[in-house]
Amino acid sequence: MGRDLTALFDPGSVAVVGASDDPAKYGHAVASQALRAPGRRPVHLVNRRGGTVLGRTAAPSLAAIGEPVELVVISVPGAGFEAAVDDALACGARAIVGITAGFAEAGPEGLARQRAVAARVRAAGAVLVGPNCLGIADNTTELYLASDRFAPGGVALLSQSGNLALELQLRAAPHGLGFSRFVSLGNQADVTLVDLVEDCARHEATVAIAVYAEDFGDGRAFARAAAAAGKPVVLLSAGRGAASARSAQSHTGALTTSADVVAAACRDAGVELVHTPREMTVVLAALSAGPRTSGRRTAVFTDGGGHGAIAADAAEDAGLDVPELGARAQERLRAVLWEQSAVGNPVDLAGMGEQNPGSYADTVAELLAADEVDAVLMTGYFGGYAASDGGLGGGSAGGADGGSAGGPDHGPDGGSALAQGEQRAARAIAAHLAAAPKPLVVQSMYPRSPSCRILAAAGVPVFAATEDAARALAAMTARGAAGPPALPALPAPAAPLRDTGYHGVRALLDSAGVPFPPAREITDEAGLLAAAREFEGPYVLKALHLLHKSDAGGVALRLADADALLAAHRDMHARLGAPSYSVEAMADLTDGVELIVGVNRDPRFGPVAMVGLGGVLTETLRDVAFALAPVPARRAEELLRGLRTAALLTGVRGRPAVDVAAAAAVIERVTAVAAAHPEIAELEVNPLLVRPDGAVALDARAVLL
Amino acid sequence: MGRDLTALFDPGSVAVVGASDDPAKYGHAVASQALRAPGRRPVHLVNRRGGTVLGRTAAPSLAAIGEPVELVVISVPGAGFEAAVDDALACGARAIVGITAGFAEAGPEGLARQRAVAARVRAAGAVLVGPNCLGIADNTTELYLASDRFAPGGVALLSQSGNLALELQLRAAPHGLGFSRFVSLGNQADVTLVDLVEDCARHEATVAIAVYAEDFGDGRAFARAAAAAGKPVVLLSAGRGAASARSAQSHTGALTTSADVVAAACRDAGVELVHTPREMTVVLAALSAGPRTSGRRTAVFTDGGGHGAIAADAAEDAGLDVPELGARAQERLRAVLWEQSAVGNPVDLAGMGEQNPGSYADTVAELLAADEVDAVLMTGYFGGYAASDGGLGGGSAGGADGGSAGGPDHGPDGGSALAQGEQRAARAIAAHLAAAPKPLVVQSMYPRSPSCRILAAAGVPVFAATEDAARALAAMTARGAAGPPALPALPAPAAPLRDTGYHGVRALLDSAGVPFPPAREITDEAGLLAAAREFEGPYVLKALHLLHKSDAGGVALRLADADALLAAHRDMHARLGAPSYSVEAMADLTDGVELIVGVNRDPRFGPVAMVGLGGVLTETLRDVAFALAPVPARRAEELLRGLRTAALLTGVRGRPAVDVAAAAAVIERVTAVAAAHPEIAELEVNPLLVRPDGAVALDARAVLL
Repeated sequence: MGRDLTALFDPGSVAVVGASDDPAKYGHAVASQALRAPGRRPVHLVNRRGGTVLGRTAAPSLAAIGEPVELVVISVPGAGFEAAVDDALACGARAIVGITAGFAEAGPEGLARQRAVAARVRAAGAVLVGPNCLGIADNTTELYLASDRFAPGGVALLSQSGNLALELQLRAAPHGLGFSRFVSLGNQADVTLVDLVEDCARHEATVAIAVYAEDFGDGRAFARAAAAAGKPVVLLSAGRGAASARSAQSHTGALTTSADVVAAACRDAGVELVHTPREMTVVLAALSAGPRTSGRRTAVFTDGGGHGAIAADAAEDAGLDVPELGARAQERLRAVLWEQSAVGNPVDLAGMGEQNPGSYADTVAELLAADEVDAVLMTGYFGGYAASDGGLGGGSAGGADGGSAGGPDHGPDGGSALAQGEQRAARAIAAHLAAAPKPLVVQSMYPRSPSCRILAAAGVPVFAATEDAARALAAMTARGAAGPPALPALPAPAAPLRDTGYHGVRALLDSAGVPFPPAREITDEAGLLAAAREFEGPYVLKALHLLHKSDAGGVALRLADADALLAAHRDMHARLGAPSYSVEAMADLTDGVELIVGVNRDPRFGPVAMVGLGGVLTETLRDVAFALAPVPARRAEELLRGLRTAALLTGVRGRPAVDVAAAAAVIERVTAVAAAHPEIAELEVNPLLVRPDGAVALDARAVLL
Repeated sequence: MGRDLTALFDPGSVAVVGASDDPAKYGHAVASQALRAPGRRPVHLVNRRGGTVLGRTAAPSLAAIGEPVELVVISVPGAGFEAAVDDALACGARAIVGITAGFAEAGPEGLARQRAVAARVRAAGAVLVGPNCLGIADNTTELYLASDRFAPGGVALLSQSGNLALELQLRAAPHGLGFSRFVSLGNQADVTLVDLVEDCARHEATVAIAVYAEDFGDGRAFARAAAAAGKPVVLLSAGRGAASARSAQSHTGALTTSADVVAAACRDAGVELVHTPREMTVVLAALSAGPRTSGRRTAVFTDGGGHGAIAADAAEDAGLDVPELGARAQERLRAVLWEQSAVGNPVDLAGMGEQNPGSYADTVAELLAADEVDAVLMTGYFGGYAASDGGLGGGSAGGADGGSAGGPDHGPDGGSALAQGEQRAARAIAAHLAAAPKPLVVQSMYPRSPSCRILAAAGVPVFAATEDAARALAAMTARGAAGPPALPALPAPAAPLRDTGYHGVRALLDSAGVPFPPAREITDEAGLLAAAREFEGPYVLKALHLLHKSDAGGVALRLADADALLAAHRDMHARLGAPSYSVEAMADLTDGVELIVGVNRDPRFGPVAMVGLGGVLTETLRDVAFALAPVPARRAEELLRGLRTAALLTGVRGRPAVDVAAAAAVIERVTAVAAAHPEIAELEVNPLLVRPDGAVALDARAVLL
């Protein structure tokens, strides 16, 4: 399973080629870091001028070291890269980290050079990270081969951007997060994102895998690896707008993938998709913390109404539900709270916390015990009674939103009875949570107060900002909610489709069980009349082998009988002179809704299905959903029911509901056909008519790669 | 204009009734604060037991002070409040701050008491803030009558939640923000939000007005005051979901307003609407800073592609545009940048900043100079070369997202050439900005670095989080973009509508210039036939004075001639027995689109218009827009063109565009009628048929209050 990357992450010896005393050179930064753990393994510095680097004797070449080196970092000018790789392999290197830039990202010539050197590395049985990368680090093996220091912890960070990795590193500490590993992906000439996800999944010290990627390489394999990882994978991804897609392309010279496809792959693979470094840190903090759940029914709880209302909105914005509590839960809350407390949800102590901080704990206990509550969001002042600082984070500097209580310690106030009561309440909340494990997230104006630090130590994520707390709670409920990742396996390729004509595509889909109305392809009037005798009218006549047949007047509907069919054919043939026509039984459109089902082959993620409602309005709204193909019927039904215009399927204004299950079954078959035919670039059934009594495909087309 | 609140914000003397040595009592906190500026004005403490409070002799009553007191703070148990108010008025108080709770928020009896006491205060020519409030503060007059300290600055904070005000206070400092005034709104029994906005608009030291409100009182007057303020008004508001609406209602016992109406009022009044304390702080920081603009074309600029892509997405998410730069602008950038730099937008130095920090300044200069660029978002590493700390905020505590560079000073590194070059670049950017003032916002991993502090001092908002920078820039462009606030004046009330029957409502609208097809109300067959002779068919027949006439089969369309009309009438009358019917000329529906125009009278904001596209799908999507009525035609057209399904108006799939201007003119007239009729609770034209050649109302109804 997966490539062996031991030589990369735990080599017996290391050499830095291009080590330098010049602080403006990257070889200086890497060499300085490499020397941080001198006792762990031999670290050799190589500089072609020899002499002294960082106070050590530098070898003038790898060969001059005089003994094998297991991992070689190469940070030399572009022209010397291939020679350095060859030297490294000659020295017995099992792993190479290529810092040097100027390859695939610089154009076709660079790509060719990169391919050639990667092939040489693989032929030698070694592995190559980069080129055009910023190095790697593994805190669990004291391997420091990047310019930045990453505090130890459970997050493996795989990034295609050095600066974003740096920002994530800066953001981690205040949330109590640290890193097991860091890999700058570079151009992924040999070791890919997929290899690294697989290796980090096996890496015991890694609790969660954080990825920033612009080029997914084999996106389908990435999704598969993430789904199989058995630990949270969080993906920071840009490209939702045209500008960011332009940027990613110019940054890495790589194929970029549409944001819709990335989002669909993430959902199917159980990957948490985030859009900013800040959001990534919040989600990592959440997924590294307490229990998760599949439910989204959230109790919002505060002392002082404003925060409750703001947090309830933020929770709903994050996709959580904040339903009114039932009579029984309200009664139980009433029994422990004041008369003026609100118990409907949001729950508001309404000042009781100031009289008795224990009421915070009593309320949390009742909420955790309620069957109708999946998760709790506590918001507002809690922490303030025992806070010795100005609130919202660190010392008097007043940095806000630095995140959870994981930051440096502040001496507890401990003074007042309120402060002591609040800390007792924090300990009681921790105990209640241990007894009834449900996600609990706290937003506090005093996230680093002694009381909040008690909560954080018990695995409760604490944030300064309401929106962060809501986002975190959504992450703690979503993973469960999605169930086990529903990543479909690709079927074995079927015999390739040759006839991409309409009837060829129909035949392919028909053989897979996709229902169509009766139809015959005809080339003359005799054939037309014979077809009319085969099945009942009304008929449809379509001109074939024309682009945009509908716009060109190449479709005639509601032809009552053979005479009408004949007349339509004469008219159409005179106008269009198409080489052949299709005569079809017209489907009954009564109470029907038209759907679209398409499958496109993405160069990164393979066959990707799109389903949506047809018609002018839904096209205008682009009300469609994506999923990796093949799409099981159960998932297809979820996609349809999740459309913004899904109400049309369930019957509005007295119209009967249509047979969504039948439509989903057809979607399963269409997407399975596309997945089994790698030669098909696009396969589309449009419209797929779904009525109260079933679904039938009314047109189909395919485009080969 | 507006009430005189001088006695409230700059009283000659102050008394705190209920002053206490017990730290658990609010009268202790307020008294302690009140004594902070003992030299400014006499401050009297009153405690009915007399003795010593806070080391001073306390008066046993206001009368015992023996001299008039201009402002009295009352923090006594509920039963004693009215007596304390009477004592204060007897002592000559011109202003009263009522801390005491238990009035409108406690139920109808409390509301009655509150009204009575407010009437007594007004009758005495004094003003009352509260009751059920947490006090006030004015840093410009050294008046401290709330439990929290607010650092001095330009923001006037008017809040209905004490804890949210406290959070905003904690969040302000790291953004360089401080407060001119704080008012806890309480129940607004006398002094209202509107009075305070008007007064803060006149208050020279106030630069921006920040509001958290659950009950807007006279919402229309609030919108008017905000539009006329001449300085930014930022509103933090909850209530988008059902849960937050429940919470606000239970918190204040007040009427809550739908989030749609609040959002429409804010847009019309030029108020920046925000949803969390964090967002409010970001927007206040932006609006207290550099130049604003009406354009949204944003250049995103970084060194190192990842941040550019992430920021471009964030900018688009915030409503900004990130268009590709034109050939000329790209050429000019090429002239100052490296070959590998990306100049399309996002602009990416691609490592040049590390060689020459001046390239940051050169790039900003070119972007500010480009006509096609309205605003610049710089993102990523800038600040790092001169950073002496761990980045993302304060000292080694590493608090992130604390916001702008306004925090405490850190000694500049100043050491390396890169660090010095970066600070020179920051000064050059400041100079470029002074020469070409356009909004420039910076996201930096080192927001408090010396380089970023130089930018902040030049009025550039600097943030740690990408999404904050994007939100800030959106605020700096939106206010301009909306143009001067388009707050419509309410017309004088017209003669009330008496006949709310269909033809009565038609007549009202017809007299205001709303076009309808010819129609006659008839009660028998003779009348029906007479009507048919008056105008041409095809006809429509509607049964009148029935609820849901359409669902009940009370509408017959496409009746070709008098015979068909007669037959339809017999059938309908037999089934429904309606008291009367309407015979109408059927409008030509060809190429038409059905709209909905409705006006509802909101108890807070008065007449509020809703416009949208009709039909099943748009109703399902709830694709409607709101505005305060009356709605000028120009605004109505903007609303229609802003609908998600607006493409249906401009012609899709070869259909002709419809006459949106004609529809907008009808909307202006319908909303003007509603605005002039305060007795009408709901007025609706549905459908309003708009075709390529005009617009015509096909049905109308009104409901009186």
